[in-house]
Amino acid sequence: MEKTLKEIALFVEGKLVGIDQEMGGKEVKIKGLSGIEEAGPGDLTFLANPKYKNFLDKTKASAVIVGEDIGIDQEIEKSRIPVIRCKNPRFAFCKVMELFFPPQKIYPEKIDKTSVLGKDVKIGKGIYIGPFVVVEDNVEIKDDVVIMAGSFIGKNSTLKENSIIYPNVTIREDVTVGKNVVIHSGTVVGADGFGYAFESGVYHKIPQVGKVQIDDFVEIGANVCIDRATLGTTKIGKGTKIDNLVQIGHNVKIGENTIIVAQVGISGSTRIGNNVIIAGQAGFVGHIEIGDRVVVGAQSGISKDIPSDTVVFGYPAREARKAKKIEACISNLPKWVKRVSELEKKIKEIEKKH
Amino acid sequence: MEKTLKEIALFVEGKLVGIDQEMGGKEVKIKGLSGIEEAGPGDLTFLANPKYKNFLDKTKASAVIVGEDIGIDQEIEKSRIPVIRCKNPRFAFCKVMELFFPPQKIYPEKIDKTSVLGKDVKIGKGIYIGPFVVVEDNVEIKDDVVIMAGSFIGKNSTLKENSIIYPNVTIREDVTVGKNVVIHSGTVVGADGFGYAFESGVYHKIPQVGKVQIDDFVEIGANVCIDRATLGTTKIGKGTKIDNLVQIGHNVKIGENTIIVAQVGISGSTRIGNNVIIAGQAGFVGHIEIGDRVVVGAQSGISKDIPSDTVVFGYPAREARKAKKIEACISNLPKWVKRVSELEKKIKEIEKKH
Amino acid sequence: MEKTLKEIALFVEGKLVGIDQEMGGKEVKIKGLSGIEEAGPGDLTFLANPKYKNFLDKTKASAVIVGEDIGIDQEIEKSRIPVIRCKNPRFAFCKVMELFFPPQKIYPEKIDKTSVLGKDVKIGKGIYIGPFVVVEDNVEIKDDVVIMAGSFIGKNSTLKENSIIYPNVTIREDVTVGKNVVIHSGTVVGADGFGYAFESGVYHKIPQVGKVQIDDFVEIGANVCIDRATLGTTKIGKGTKIDNLVQIGHNVKIGENTIIVAQVGISGSTRIGNNVIIAGQAGFVGHIEIGDRVVVGAQSGISKDIPSDTVVFGYPAREARKAKKIEACISNLPKWVKRVSELEKKIKEIEKKH
Repeated sequence: MEKTLKEIALFVEGKLVGIDQEMGGKEVKIKGLSGIEEAGPGDLTFLANPKYKNFLDKTKASAVIVGEDIGIDQEIEKSRIPVIRCKNPRFAFCKVMELFFPPQKIYPEKIDKTSVLGKDVKIGKGIYIGPFVVVEDNVEIKDDVVIMAGSFIGKNSTLKENSIIYPNVTIREDVTVGKNVVIHSGTVVGADGFGYAFESGVYHKIPQVGKVQIDDFVEIGANVCIDRATLGTTKIGKGTKIDNLVQIGHNVKIGENTIIVAQVGISGSTRIGNNVIIAGQAGFVGHIEIGDRVVVGAQSGISKDIPSDTVVFGYPAREARKAKKIEACISNLPKWVKRVSELEKKIKEIEKKH
Repeated sequence: MEKTLKEIALFVEGKLVGIDQEMGGKEVKIKGLSGIEEAGPGDLTFLANPKYKNFLDKTKASAVIVGEDIGIDQEIEKSRIPVIRCKNPRFAFCKVMELFFPPQKIYPEKIDKTSVLGKDVKIGKGIYIGPFVVVEDNVEIKDDVVIMAGSFIGKNSTLKENSIIYPNVTIREDVTVGKNVVIHSGTVVGADGFGYAFESGVYHKIPQVGKVQIDDFVEIGANVCIDRATLGTTKIGKGTKIDNLVQIGHNVKIGENTIIVAQVGISGSTRIGNNVIIAGQAGFVGHIEIGDRVVVGAQSGISKDIPSDTVVFGYPAREARKAKKIEACISNLPKWVKRVSELEKKIKEIEKKH
Repeated sequence: MEKTLKEIALFVEGKLVGIDQEMGGKEVKIKGLSGIEEAGPGDLTFLANPKYKNFLDKTKASAVIVGEDIGIDQEIEKSRIPVIRCKNPRFAFCKVMELFFPPQKIYPEKIDKTSVLGKDVKIGKGIYIGPFVVVEDNVEIKDDVVIMAGSFIGKNSTLKENSIIYPNVTIREDVTVGKNVVIHSGTVVGADGFGYAFESGVYHKIPQVGKVQIDDFVEIGANVCIDRATLGTTKIGKGTKIDNLVQIGHNVKIGENTIIVAQVGISGSTRIGNNVIIAGQAGFVGHIEIGDRVVVGAQSGISKDIPSDTVVFGYPAREARKAKKIEACISNLPKWVKRVSELEKKIKEIEKKH
């Protein structure tokens, strides 16, 4: 693939700026895409976070997609290299990536002869089922679904149009996977929730007979666990994206377009709103409610409801401004302790004089 | 399934109370079970935690199993709906669940023709071995064991009566799995412990030649890792329940009836007692000893022995009462810092006067 | 296997000391190896950490390999049992373990008839490919590689000499695995990085078209996730050892001989140096740089660059000496708060007098 900068600027609806124009930059040819640090001549890269704008001076890329932030603009005027200014540079680069690396139909229509299909399995068109896949009774697989090698689909489950199941995924019984869902390798959907009743000195397993519902456009990373509900349904809302090694307990409900970064744990029956962002390794106790557009910092411990539009972090999690103040106090604690000791000395001296 | 409230009260040895009696409540018919928030007419639900007793006024269930706590009783007298009072409402509901959803023999006696069995494998009666299962040499599989699709059982391992291995589980060599054990998908039992000797600038792998022993009635969640011992045996005691994504290092010994919530990590050679409760994401360094009936809060960091009957939380973990005091101080730290500043001013003024 | 203490001392280039000589200890016969607590008569064990030297008095082992630390030496002179003194007792014991448990060629040369190999797969000599393994097109498998049951190797990937892939591993396309690499069960190498562009209210997936490169002598635990790069390559340097359930994001670069303990998470594009030690459950934000020989405490939260030769811990992570001071202050916080209250009272009294 090869495109001129002019063509790319047009494609992403961006504005070509910088010293490039004097240099005939519009005819610069882009042959590849790369991260800003690894980029070399012929590469296009992007800069979305103003924090990294010093890379503009260092990059060996032939051009950079940047945002419209004024601070950066001034840098750009002196920039050594052509830039394409876009409202959303990350999205613009995403589009260029799709242009250079068009999504390939990974697998042809095929049901591998080694796969094992149960009774009353409904199969749509354009489906790929790889080697050693097991599909149990009464499963419904709609058009253009891909199920890769070694994956297991339990009875009564449904996979809707265009979903991709990577190798070695386990989807247990009574799970509904929406359209255009992606589930990465090693992930387990629908294992039993963790529920026991303690009686006479031992834990009795509470039957876990609920379902899991994963809505359209959800992506689930590798080695994730999403447990089935005890009764009712564990739900992942439309467009939500879940990173690797995340734990989602029984009866959890997650809203739409929510981001859950790696190794987060969400305990049973907790509800997470829409457009929430949860950074890595954060943990939630069960039975709480997190509003819409909440942002949770990495490794935070959440034990209470959080109202919508709140930013929290810390262990225990506190509203961000309060958490920062406390953090600053803690950082200076040895000094404060010293100041208290000095005060005590002074008071003693004053008391002596009386 | 349909039961009258009277039948259910009798079955769980509970007492029917509330306004139901005036309303002929004993003839109320229960057609389904549900969580207290999702329940509708015809559903029975339960309320174990007094913290959620306000749901009693809101639920659309036809009846609720509740505890005998006096506080709740008063609520119940005015309750809109019939309740069944039980000593252990969670256990009572568990029993009703088993009544409505009796445990099914998931799979018939069958050794799938695609499975691969090694030499000298001993097979009991009533066993199900699913598609693409690999059982290596000298494995012993006792009566009524279920091994689902894609699971691997390494040489010299034993699975005792009535255990269930869900799809895509890996059990390496020299592992003993007790009776009535459940192991969920993606879990790896018996991978090498993480042990190296550093010499001449590189890490040399210490051979990991020990075993794993999982005792009767243990349940292990999905994507859990339980490493084999370097020498000797990694042990999980009878009746212990382990949630998803838990890490258990080489030579760890865990007692009986202990609860380990998701994403907990226990480093090599640490010993955990009986009836311990470890909340999610807590971490333990190696070579320490945790007594019986210890409770460890979520995300706690444990770097020292903990005596029996102690409640700890925090990072680093402290005894609960101390941890709470410190937590309260931290929460008010900005105020205390201000008060110290004010004291400094006052002292200065006093000093001036002298 | 049976060896005399004399033979073992010679083999590990250690010095036999203790009361053994009077007792004819050189002819003591060692029949087994064991941990210091579990050891019995006939066993050799080792003691590397002076912290556990009290076990010297308790162990039932017939002999102990110990270090040359003077503190321990004095204990040894009075030791009830023979000891072998070595510069590096852990490494010496590692060598004796290899003597007693010589590495076995686990599997013979064989390509299981149930495995599925794609087009243009290049296969070296001495290779074992187990049941239900899938190897896609254009994969290169060099001499003496072992790929165990149920593992998946995606197209265009390369496995170099002598590497071992345990059961149920997923290696996606365009992954290079170096020589003598070990990858444990359930691990996923090359799943898509977690990258999205937010536009018009939804997250658009950024194509993840980069590679993964795992260098020689790396060991990767069970259920680990190492994501492919968005563009470019995610790299794990030579001799680095990764424990179970670790998350390594897209475009991360890890140096050589680095130790990463269980459940650590490293976000996208972060660079970790050589000879770094990262304790369990620590987390790193993306786009930061960690120098060489850095030591990171368990559960630490790292949000900034760390220069070489630094020890850090805490949440947020601080340089160890500072973190310890702060930790001590926090531990005494209730006392300090009391002292501030007392100061306030005294000041009030002083002010009254004036």
